[in-house]
Amino acid sequence: MIRLYDFELSGCCYKVRLLLNILKVSCERVPVDFANKEHKTNNFLKLNPLGEVPVMEDGEVRLRDSQSILVYIARQYDRSNTWFPDAPDSMGRIMQWLAFGGHELMTASGARAVKLFKYPLDLPALQARAMAAFRILDAHLAGREFLEFGHPTIADIACFPYVAMAGEGGIDLKPYPNILHWIDRIKQIPGFTAMPGIPALGAVAA
Amino acid sequence: MIRLYDFELSGCCYKVRLLLNILKVSCERVPVDFANKEHKTNNFLKLNPLGEVPVMEDGEVRLRDSQSILVYIARQYDRSNTWFPDAPDSMGRIMQWLAFGGHELMTASGARAVKLFKYPLDLPALQARAMAAFRILDAHLAGREFLEFGHPTIADIACFPYVAMAGEGGIDLKPYPNILHWIDRIKQIPGFTAMPGIPALGAVAA
Repeated sequence: MIRLYDFELSGCCYKVRLLLNILKVSCERVPVDFANKEHKTNNFLKLNPLGEVPVMEDGEVRLRDSQSILVYIARQYDRSNTWFPDAPDSMGRIMQWLAFGGHELMTASGARAVKLFKYPLDLPALQARAMAAFRILDAHLAGREFLEFGHPTIADIACFPYVAMAGEGGIDLKPYPNILHWIDRIKQIPGFTAMPGIPALGAVAA
Repeated sequence: MIRLYDFELSGCCYKVRLLLNILKVSCERVPVDFANKEHKTNNFLKLNPLGEVPVMEDGEVRLRDSQSILVYIARQYDRSNTWFPDAPDSMGRIMQWLAFGGHELMTASGARAVKLFKYPLDLPALQARAMAAFRILDAHLAGREFLEFGHPTIADIACFPYVAMAGEGGIDLKPYPNILHWIDRIKQIPGFTAMPGIPALGAVAA
């Protein structure tokens, strides 16, 4: 069974849990004591020298980095070949959004970390960069149901969490109507699962 | 034929040129006037809303982000299935280094941009983060020929340029002997091509 070194409030861990739940793949969650910096201990650094969650183990395979884990899970467990289709251009197009989710959108994660976890980062700068990324995302989503191919892929999963939790970083999503609709569509995917900060469709945030 | 919107001194453009040359795939290079910020003009933003080089076009396929372009080229043109092998665990393991090259190692790119292009960034902070990434890379390379699988993959291509050009960002690579050997091995790959700042093996930097 897949083992996921996990922190409940991490959007990067949530990405993995979300895809696993959609694909009906069960996993053993190993909670990492983030508040006490377990992810920076020597034991954890043996699992991931970058000192970050999530880490996934599946038999002999151990992977860090949420985007890389999404790639593995989709190729290994998605029998429909729709979440990371194997055509070269499909892979390239989806990779663009894995990079966007792992880089540009991590500014929104940074803003949230300042607000939620008191990280000593430059909040206004992070919010400004996040909003610049949201403008690009919103423009791309005009007339589209999902980021690529008209159906959900790991591109959507990779970009979703920190956009959906933008409010926790003090960023209002009202100026981005296409993003708001996209968030609702993702919440309607069978197997969608909520997390603190990302309520189910129609539910009210705790 | 592949069209590459290209800037000679960009390590991210160089990654793409390097893989194309190794795979003997020809391309038309379209120089982007980086000094005059052509990559931020409206015309270029239609090619890539992120306003960055490289951008690749291959028939109907247009991609931004050097890592995504490497994925496409490897899957489309590498008949040996060794540069981005299609096994799920291979893809996941290589993806980890695409993420590392696109994120952690971009701190070395940032340090170089301060030195070479006078970017107004925090040079000591970037150098410190780059050296932390180099320590991880050097430790991983102990006893390994290449980053994964004992043969070169797009993981190596994605991580190579800004490590090899670390000196241009004021970072000495002498403390990282495994990295220095890895750089030499990459330079011995048939089809290796140099760029300003990355001389061929045995050649002296201009």
